Amino acid sequence: MSTLTHQGFTLWLTGMSGAGKSTISDALMERFRSAGAKVELLDGDIVRTNLSQGLGFSREDRDTNIRRIGFVSELLSRNGIIVVVAAISPYRAAREEVRARVTNFVEVHVDCPIEVLAKRDVKGLYKRALAGEVANFTGISDPYEAPLNPEVLVRTDLETLDESVGKVWSELTRKGLISPND
Amino acid sequence: MSTLTHQGFTLWLTGMSGAGKSTISDALMERFRSAGAKVELLDGDIVRTNLSQGLGFSREDRDTNIRRIGFVSELLSRNGIIVVVAAISPYRAAREEVRARVTNFVEVHVDCPIEVLAKRDVKGLYKRALAGEVANFTGISDPYEAPLNPEVLVRTDLETLDESVGKVWSELTRKGLISPND
Repeated sequence: MSTLTHQGFTLWLTGMSGAGKSTISDALMERFRSAGAKVELLDGDIVRTNLSQGLGFSREDRDTNIRRIGFVSELLSRNGIIVVVAAISPYRAAREEVRARVTNFVEVHVDCPIEVLAKRDVKGLYKRALAGEVANFTGISDPYEAPLNPEVLVRTDLETLDESVGKVWSELTRKGLISPND
Repeated sequence: MSTLTHQGFTLWLTGMSGAGKSTISDALMERFRSAGAKVELLDGDIVRTNLSQGLGFSREDRDTNIRRIGFVSELLSRNGIIVVVAAISPYRAAREEVRARVTNFVEVHVDCPIEVLAKRDVKGLYKRALAGEVANFTGISDPYEAPLNPEVLVRTDLETLDESVGKVWSELTRKGLISPND
């Protein structure tokens, strides 16, 4: 019943807390599922519970967490499954390591200026981090290394959700990873 | 080009060290691959490296390791992929937890009397364990809880490799999880 032909690939959404990774990945999941695609979501929380309980937020622990997500993404992608990953994944080297390993890796930088994030601050985390109350907070007390050349750059302060999702969809189409069944 | 139609399922080989889990799973992998099936092997060592580095051999750590293998098996199986797991997985409760979670879970008890294992002792581990030199050694200084009602029981001291593989293959066919394309 699929209205979409697709290959296996991993759509990797990286970006700071609150930038919109989960919102965009949820919208993408909905669109993939409606089209009958085989797709799995690996978001940061699911993975911390199921694969990485006990790991913290040091660079080493974050890298280990990313490698595990990469391992699972590889197993799924090479078998024709679409994987959507939503994870801060702040270190460039760890993302590049996953890219080298995973069949059809598509990096999406979910970007938003920190001033806007601090203003939105849905969970009140930025206020606390800016007050120095949160250790290892990406973008404030911990680095965020933005992708230098991501396949897709979305700016959630300047675009609507539909526009961001549309940019990702276009890139997947352009690469031949998805194609509609007429 | 597949000569085999198959569903997604997880073939879970449990048994003591040296009983023959890897030998049987390698033979099964070869047979699945020759038939063009989509299949992944998760063996104890691969998983310890990629998902469970840092975990030890306490009951808690072993259970965590098994849950992680179960999580990955579930993601693959529900997308139509065959997963072959070769892991000692000594605790019944942990295996039952995975069974409850995974689409089409097929448990294979790779059984061999401990006297025979101690006599084979390819890696010299039983000798050391029986001398009290290895902590947490399954079947000697740590428990092995045999499955009460596995889908397949193979006895590697009494059967040839081909016979054991054949028993697994028959059970998969009987359950309708695999069927040859004529």
